[in-house]
Amino acid sequence: MTAYSRLEAVFRKSAAIGDALGVLQWDMATMMPDGGAEGRAEQMATLKGIAHETVTAPDMADLLAQAEGETLDGWERANLREMRREWVHAAAVPGDLVDALARAESACEMAWREARPAADFKRVLPALSDLLGLVRQVGAIKAEKLGVGIYDALLDQYEPEGRSAEIDAVFDPLEAFLPGFIEEALAAQARRPASVAPSGPFPTGQQKALGLKLMEMAGFDFHHGRLDVSRHPFCGGSPEDTRITTRYNEDDFASAMMGVLHETGHALYEFGLPKGRWRSQPVGRARGMVVHESQSLLMEMQACRSREFMTFAAPLIRDAFGGQGAAWEADNLYRRGIRVERGFIRVEADECTYPAHVIIRYRLEKALIEGRMELADLPGAWNEGYKRLLGITPPDDRLGCLQDIHWYGGSWGYFPTYTLGAMTAAQLFAAAQAADAEVLPAMGKGDFKPLLAWLRANVHGHGSSLSTRDLVTRATGRPLDPAVFEAHLRRRYLD
Amino acid sequence: MTAYSRLEAVFRKSAAIGDALGVLQWDMATMMPDGGAEGRAEQMATLKGIAHETVTAPDMADLLAQAEGETLDGWERANLREMRREWVHAAAVPGDLVDALARAESACEMAWREARPAADFKRVLPALSDLLGLVRQVGAIKAEKLGVGIYDALLDQYEPEGRSAEIDAVFDPLEAFLPGFIEEALAAQARRPASVAPSGPFPTGQQKALGLKLMEMAGFDFHHGRLDVSRHPFCGGSPEDTRITTRYNEDDFASAMMGVLHETGHALYEFGLPKGRWRSQPVGRARGMVVHESQSLLMEMQACRSREFMTFAAPLIRDAFGGQGAAWEADNLYRRGIRVERGFIRVEADECTYPAHVIIRYRLEKALIEGRMELADLPGAWNEGYKRLLGITPPDDRLGCLQDIHWYGGSWGYFPTYTLGAMTAAQLFAAAQAADAEVLPAMGKGDFKPLLAWLRANVHGHGSSLSTRDLVTRATGRPLDPAVFEAHLRRRYLD
Repeated sequence: MTAYSRLEAVFRKSAAIGDALGVLQWDMATMMPDGGAEGRAEQMATLKGIAHETVTAPDMADLLAQAEGETLDGWERANLREMRREWVHAAAVPGDLVDALARAESACEMAWREARPAADFKRVLPALSDLLGLVRQVGAIKAEKLGVGIYDALLDQYEPEGRSAEIDAVFDPLEAFLPGFIEEALAAQARRPASVAPSGPFPTGQQKALGLKLMEMAGFDFHHGRLDVSRHPFCGGSPEDTRITTRYNEDDFASAMMGVLHETGHALYEFGLPKGRWRSQPVGRARGMVVHESQSLLMEMQACRSREFMTFAAPLIRDAFGGQGAAWEADNLYRRGIRVERGFIRVEADECTYPAHVIIRYRLEKALIEGRMELADLPGAWNEGYKRLLGITPPDDRLGCLQDIHWYGGSWGYFPTYTLGAMTAAQLFAAAQAADAEVLPAMGKGDFKPLLAWLRANVHGHGSSLSTRDLVTRATGRPLDPAVFEAHLRRRYLD
Repeated sequence: MTAYSRLEAVFRKSAAIGDALGVLQWDMATMMPDGGAEGRAEQMATLKGIAHETVTAPDMADLLAQAEGETLDGWERANLREMRREWVHAAAVPGDLVDALARAESACEMAWREARPAADFKRVLPALSDLLGLVRQVGAIKAEKLGVGIYDALLDQYEPEGRSAEIDAVFDPLEAFLPGFIEEALAAQARRPASVAPSGPFPTGQQKALGLKLMEMAGFDFHHGRLDVSRHPFCGGSPEDTRITTRYNEDDFASAMMGVLHETGHALYEFGLPKGRWRSQPVGRARGMVVHESQSLLMEMQACRSREFMTFAAPLIRDAFGGQGAAWEADNLYRRGIRVERGFIRVEADECTYPAHVIIRYRLEKALIEGRMELADLPGAWNEGYKRLLGITPPDDRLGCLQDIHWYGGSWGYFPTYTLGAMTAAQLFAAAQAADAEVLPAMGKGDFKPLLAWLRANVHGHGSSLSTRDLVTRATGRPLDPAVFEAHLRRRYLD
């Protein structure tokens, strides 16, 4: 038995445990009665510990080294590269530091849950300072093992081979573009007639029926997935059993409808990953957070907020809720779907202002991780960023630097993936249209097949065999280019 | 660190894995899309393998031996006894025999799924013969380790310390009692006015609402459990997150209603098991299948088919479905709940005839396991048993020895627990009434608290610290006595 095939067995086992964890996580968010929380935490900690032991067994370093010398085909070679990445991230950090980090994350998140409603950054500062110190220690260790800078080492956990130099190369021009563009978009919006909100209430059952209909249309396979309700929407489970969730607001059907389409984009990616032998191997998994987010945003922002799709969907939406009148016309619904507004809260932001929220966070977390900024200066620097990019100043830290859980829960290096995903979505959607002229007209008939076929061949089926950089270059003819995203924004918001 | 405390850590880990498996199992039966089956099988096999490795680690024999010599209190001592039992059942059988058994079970169950609809016992005979051979090998190995006979060694897997000599001591008189009693019960029934079926349909939503109301009344804690739908009803999950299921027949509300009460009995046992430290230890678990079945049957058969409870429940049932007329009167519903009929199918049998179905199976499986009978003679012996005990002869093997999955799936030594559970339920319910005169009158007010308080103190809270024998003797003043069950049947069916 080769070292390589022994490694495949190790990762098959860890994949089975990971899939089991996916079900437990989904159940916790959707089905579990509250009294099950403590036991569930114990179950998940036990399985995570076993998965960690599996991937960091003492013979893994030798097996990986031996396998490098064995004869492997292209996918096996790529699989070995991804195995090593997973091993480095799991094994690089000593156990006592991993434990200290987990405790600091939990303590800081608890402090944040009190500090946020009180808009009191000082209250969370000591816990956040401890946590950031440990995150930087982890980053430094991984940076050495990976041969990259400390920020890139953390980024690599979410976006394999992501590099901040490349992020800067696309965020710098975007940052220069945004303030003026947002100004123009708001002016263009003011020249158009104001959109009108269809009046509710919109019963949950009817919203769900509409969501299921759109999911089916988009190609969601209900033999391999489900739609349920959770407080924070997500796409979980595994490629052959993908579970998406949403939440319903009876005063606004659009949030769940677009949310379902967003998660459907994630699910279609999972469905389209390589099957068979690669299914349970690192190379068969989704590439990383940038490509994953590109798939959800391609569905939500590129395909389903298009005038073509909204024109098709308007009668379905009307029928779903028995709506009548001007508010239910396609043109009005389309304009409601692309409203622009400067706001303080990232998760409520529209397509035009969202990148500004992300760029601000990316600059700040990078400075903090690299030790170029003090945590005590975060609120001020945050507000300055909002003034500069969006022209608004948060009245307090609840609407400012306390709004997102990421940093307080230990996720540093995650934020840029949102906007990289949005830019990648625009570039992939443009390439799909260039490759098949039917892609956009078909959306006007509710036909997602041309789009899905292109995504299957050019994105989903690659799994993790290519880096994000190579995948985008092969699929679109060039690396990520901010001009494509900017052209999309201009076309949609200024024309 | 003592050997004993190291053992507690081992079993805490295996309990966490077992609880995770409980959620995966529940999800598979209630929520999982069909395309998830293969992946789920892989997940569950992986976790079962890890749990097995955990409990059979090479140092376990030494740890168990060392712990015997350490100073332990009563519960620790009982816990050590249960640890050893679990270890013997897990470690006694060599890995290749375990694998061969799993394959034979799977092959035989598949053959049975074809043979049953075709009523063709011969078709499954070769696979069943292979399976029985392996089951007997396993039984022989465990018999030696446990120092008991081969049948008792298999029985011990489901009913710890269950012994067929004691089963014979209660089944022999019951077998003598039943044929004449069934005759008398049918005659008594013929003298009463025939019961009338309330006319449906009974919408699923209304059945569910009624079920939830009755569960709450019985003391089901929805912070620690749920009710869902599955093809085969069960009680699963874990003590702090207990999931029961039912299935709804829109032509007959009583089957789901009584089914929900049955599973609620199982759930109340789980809720009442020792908390804290013992929660994750073998001594804190439910005692075995006999006590578990006694708790479901106590709820369904003893408490909820009583005239007192039916009188209370009739108006609730009427309101749930908007029923009107004589069919909805308490007396009619009570009489429908205690109809007696000789039939071929165990799972459709009533309280009076059910023990006959079980005793026939127990005699046959014991003879087969002990090598006193050939498999080829099973259909004939089966039909003879039905003729003798129930006075009816199955027209074919589909309605005969092919009806139950148990033997074909590898569960040998399980059947007697059903009727031992029914007898134990009668004896516990009688003791509860003797201890607290309010138990039965309270049922007439929908008040389960006196009953539950007695069960908590005398059954649930003991976990596995006592053997079933000792638990019954302490709770009722004597070992299991068929006279108590017979008296219950006479009172309900002949008076």
